[in-house]
Amino acid sequence: MSLLVVGSVALDSVETPFGSADEALGGSAVFFSAAASLLHPVQMVGVVGRDYPMAKLQRLSARGIDLRGVTTMDGESFRWGGRYGFDLSSRETLYTRLGVFANFRPTIPAEFRDAAYVFLGNIDPELQLEVLDQVKAPKFVAADTMNFWINGKRPALLKLLERVDCLLVNDSEIRELTGDWHIHRAARWILERGPKYVVIKKGEHGAVLVGSGQIFYVPAFPLEDVFDPTGAGDAFAGGFMGHIARTGNLTPPNLRLAMVYGSAMGSFAVERFSIQRFEEIDLAAVLERVKAQRELVHFDVEPV
Amino acid sequence: MSLLVVGSVALDSVETPFGSADEALGGSAVFFSAAASLLHPVQMVGVVGRDYPMAKLQRLSARGIDLRGVTTMDGESFRWGGRYGFDLSSRETLYTRLGVFANFRPTIPAEFRDAAYVFLGNIDPELQLEVLDQVKAPKFVAADTMNFWINGKRPALLKLLERVDCLLVNDSEIRELTGDWHIHRAARWILERGPKYVVIKKGEHGAVLVGSGQIFYVPAFPLEDVFDPTGAGDAFAGGFMGHIARTGNLTPPNLRLAMVYGSAMGSFAVERFSIQRFEEIDLAAVLERVKAQRELVHFDVEPV
Repeated sequence: MSLLVVGSVALDSVETPFGSADEALGGSAVFFSAAASLLHPVQMVGVVGRDYPMAKLQRLSARGIDLRGVTTMDGESFRWGGRYGFDLSSRETLYTRLGVFANFRPTIPAEFRDAAYVFLGNIDPELQLEVLDQVKAPKFVAADTMNFWINGKRPALLKLLERVDCLLVNDSEIRELTGDWHIHRAARWILERGPKYVVIKKGEHGAVLVGSGQIFYVPAFPLEDVFDPTGAGDAFAGGFMGHIARTGNLTPPNLRLAMVYGSAMGSFAVERFSIQRFEEIDLAAVLERVKAQRELVHFDVEPV
Repeated sequence: MSLLVVGSVALDSVETPFGSADEALGGSAVFFSAAASLLHPVQMVGVVGRDYPMAKLQRLSARGIDLRGVTTMDGESFRWGGRYGFDLSSRETLYTRLGVFANFRPTIPAEFRDAAYVFLGNIDPELQLEVLDQVKAPKFVAADTMNFWINGKRPALLKLLERVDCLLVNDSEIRELTGDWHIHRAARWILERGPKYVVIKKGEHGAVLVGSGQIFYVPAFPLEDVFDPTGAGDAFAGGFMGHIARTGNLTPPNLRLAMVYGSAMGSFAVERFSIQRFEEIDLAAVLERVKAQRELVHFDVEPV
């Protein structure tokens, strides 16, 4: 059962207190795919300019990422530049140059339209809706969004909510979208508008799954050194959806486990620049971190 | 095996967006005892002025709190006034009037000196050391502190660390004490100075236990409505130490469970003003919340 992602394919330039990366592979579709492909093959849809380092992107093919949905257009690739402060929780966007991404109209290749699992990365909700018009009968659709669309494209975003199974947002986004600072009430607001589940990503404070009458909490994996937080949210989504696609199991207990895979992937993402960490690890390393995540929270109500 | 707490006994006046409480029972020893006594008898040591509403305090006796260590001195009782903002995570201290607490020198009654489990509430570390000089052979000593002592009484605080088994602090305090913004590195700094365990309280983001080569994370219990955050940290300590005293079990798995009892008690504390919630509930309600805390984080690595 195939897993489709539609999102940005970018070149990120990042400065952190520990170093900098220049024009490294980035974007929501790239981070998502790098993580998810450790668990399940991925079909990627996006757009790049003629200047994109295609050789680097092609390396992803060998990892089970089908790039036939990535089109090349005349013009500059999407570029983002950012700088992180010392505690890595605040970041400053130095520039955003949309390039060809500004005119992106996702076309899903015929061979991707049977996708069972779909992740709509953070793009214009009108385009996210266009993607859903092209896929035939997905079993589980998850979408991300951001403050820019919450303010600028609210009606389309509300329409999107009616058509997705799960919204993945961070805590500031859900507060902005719902007008409620209390994330659990905010989650209920979302659930009343279509999705069966909401995933709220809280960065260093972990993530929460709300839906099916349950709340599930997964802490961020405690790392001694966080190197570069860029892409952690999309890697989380990659782990979450990758696990769901790999198991084909949409029961609440398996969605809990999907959250843990998400958290594990988010923790790998921040250990290096760009998608570098995902190129170093294998499935065994992921499983090991999932077990470590369990060790982090496990307790017996009646200990020996 | 007895459980001893030394700390403040205060009158709190609190304003929140949801109402206000005037001169309600407060202070670290009171919140600690109200929570801990649901699990195990408590011996309380503190000081009040002649104006303290002793009838209200006496109600605690019926709950298994031995008040023979609470002395009455000429002068005004410790009073604190605070106001919380809409999201309840920021608070403004309106006044702090130490009264008789300014001259508090804890004297541990002879009948309390055999205490096996000791919680040193947030008082001058020199006084915390004096308490330890008076108890004979405690099995497990935990201490709280605050920014005021971290800055003003650092040498005494470092001496105290050498003599306690566990330090309970909040995230801003451990950062200030260690000079490291990264709480896991900061925890290691503490562990190198004496304690076997550190508990870092992160308010709405839960709490972390570090020690014995393990990290254990417990999320804050998700409440639809938080009413008044005052005392949550001391109630956490009460649940933590109350469970340890009740079970007499200092193994790492049981300390994990103690963290969960701490979190459960913290969540009860914030549901009402002052210690009101603890007067409404019983042990069964605590056990139920402990199970709900497990449901919040439990997952199977191989789900059905």
